[in-house]
Amino acid sequence: MTTNTKVLLKHRPNGEPAETDFEIIIDDVPVIEDGQILTRTIYLSLDPYMRGRMSDARSYAEPTPVGDVMTGGTVSVVEASKNEKFEEGDIVVTHTGWQVYAISDGRGVRKLRANGIPISTGIGVLGMPGMTAYTGLKNIGKPKVGETLVVAAASGPVGSTVGQIARIKGSRAVGVAGSDEKCAFAVNELGFDACLNHKAKNFEDQLAAACPDGIDIYWENVAGRVLEAVIPQLNFFSRMPVCGLISQYSMTDPPIGENKLPSLMRAVLTNRTCIQGFIVTDFGKDFKSFISDMTQWVADGKVKFKEHRIKGIENAPKGLLGLLKGDNFGKTIVEVSDDPTA
Amino acid sequence: MTTNTKVLLKHRPNGEPAETDFEIIIDDVPVIEDGQILTRTIYLSLDPYMRGRMSDARSYAEPTPVGDVMTGGTVSVVEASKNEKFEEGDIVVTHTGWQVYAISDGRGVRKLRANGIPISTGIGVLGMPGMTAYTGLKNIGKPKVGETLVVAAASGPVGSTVGQIARIKGSRAVGVAGSDEKCAFAVNELGFDACLNHKAKNFEDQLAAACPDGIDIYWENVAGRVLEAVIPQLNFFSRMPVCGLISQYSMTDPPIGENKLPSLMRAVLTNRTCIQGFIVTDFGKDFKSFISDMTQWVADGKVKFKEHRIKGIENAPKGLLGLLKGDNFGKTIVEVSDDPTA
Repeated sequence: MTTNTKVLLKHRPNGEPAETDFEIIIDDVPVIEDGQILTRTIYLSLDPYMRGRMSDARSYAEPTPVGDVMTGGTVSVVEASKNEKFEEGDIVVTHTGWQVYAISDGRGVRKLRANGIPISTGIGVLGMPGMTAYTGLKNIGKPKVGETLVVAAASGPVGSTVGQIARIKGSRAVGVAGSDEKCAFAVNELGFDACLNHKAKNFEDQLAAACPDGIDIYWENVAGRVLEAVIPQLNFFSRMPVCGLISQYSMTDPPIGENKLPSLMRAVLTNRTCIQGFIVTDFGKDFKSFISDMTQWVADGKVKFKEHRIKGIENAPKGLLGLLKGDNFGKTIVEVSDDPTA
Repeated sequence: MTTNTKVLLKHRPNGEPAETDFEIIIDDVPVIEDGQILTRTIYLSLDPYMRGRMSDARSYAEPTPVGDVMTGGTVSVVEASKNEKFEEGDIVVTHTGWQVYAISDGRGVRKLRANGIPISTGIGVLGMPGMTAYTGLKNIGKPKVGETLVVAAASGPVGSTVGQIARIKGSRAVGVAGSDEKCAFAVNELGFDACLNHKAKNFEDQLAAACPDGIDIYWENVAGRVLEAVIPQLNFFSRMPVCGLISQYSMTDPPIGENKLPSLMRAVLTNRTCIQGFIVTDFGKDFKSFISDMTQWVADGKVKFKEHRIKGIENAPKGLLGLLKGDNFGKTIVEVSDDPTA
């Protein structure tokens, strides 16, 4: 390849994003200077947080400027190096976004060593989503033997890992997902104790029935109907790590209707619930223990993962739009170019 | 006195309580047995949590049974003792509720030692409300130099103490109260940096203007309009100790209108806000340091307190109803019988 395909942010979406908010361009492959490396993206990660970067609302990270390459984590191969820390052929995890080739000074670039686990996990269970699940549970959720954890998006990369770690720690894991097929997968393949389809008419009753001892940990990935169903079931000293709010990301106006804020606050007060927002970088101190524990758990089959693969970087916009609607089934990964380890 | 006046819970209120929900009866003074003490209530504390005990909704404490004496903390004098730990004349802090005389086995009864500070503070700044402020700030609010704290009910016993401790710790204290007179008191007497009347039409704009660097700590005493005005001003890593929700206590139906739950959850996620419900007994470990620090601060004039006194136990129902509407100005105390130290 002598050209570089890039996906740029063309417009800031108002509400649900569309493919027309992106622009695909063909550019030259960049040339490295002293201290730099040239990487070729093998796998691009698609994640819900990318919706946030498309907007200019105040958040924990700067928005992607209009006209810039969309941000994103990747598993890449070093194609050329003028940096003594990297050699041609190194497989790395980096954050070069939605493009095939990129240059970097090596900062924040992490080498993957062969360990028998597919390299695509570097942006999945052994990467940002896995670390999110691991550190959010360790620092906020704190699952204990016999407790009940509820997590939505239970077949997604964070939710599936949250439920499996909770079970390793002796808690019950009750998943919530958007289809019966995803629910069956969470129970039969991942070992969740139960998993409920939030599209069911009587979802609220099903959730109460699946949590006869109440809810000790609610891992917040989605907000909306799931959060509202959880509030009345919260136990004393319950914890709510707030990791994502995917049902809200494309909301332009808050829905009109019954005001649920008083019910949440009452639950917080009477139960001494802890609600804590976080992002994965808040717990960087835990990276080593995460890699050590999670590599072992994956190798032992205690934590399983599922990938939802999309072929070709030109299909990344469609992949992200599908992810935001819950069309993915597992960790969404774009196959950008050949995997030399496969 | 040879009779005992008691105030009983007659009905569970539906919505706002009324004086008819209480019954005043005259009973015999109880007679002590071995191991017991007879106490006479000097001061009875009236507190917002009492509204919760009148209801049978699930909470952190059992409701007061209908027909029982209303619960409440008191400063009392030991009138007779068959318990070796207490002598006649001891001034104690106990929890014998809305009655003049009570018997007790001495458990949970704390002797007050003369320290030059009025004994009524044993149910105020040196008692449960002060301990609530002290421990909630120490364990959840964690005020730091240069941060901004917002607290409503700023002239009340908890809010006034919260703001003054925050200033001792080097934070700015912005109060919110229900009258211009209370606001002036918070600024001029207690040393708050600002205090806003939440009944003002442009309260939301005033709050934003009074917090030019955003809000690091919101001490939640009231919910409702104040909470909703705070949400857009929350800073990264802000903390919200949830101590009370007085505006909600007598709500029968949640208000219909704009749904503020999504905006709260978005603020939690993007700011990594921590919302933590608590009650004072959760932090019993801090009691000794509370008494030591607070006694010193009160003696040094660094923490001031104001009392709202009501004469006669028969006026306690009216006092509680007024407190729930914000009619009190300072810590509400019922003068039940003669104070031998005054």
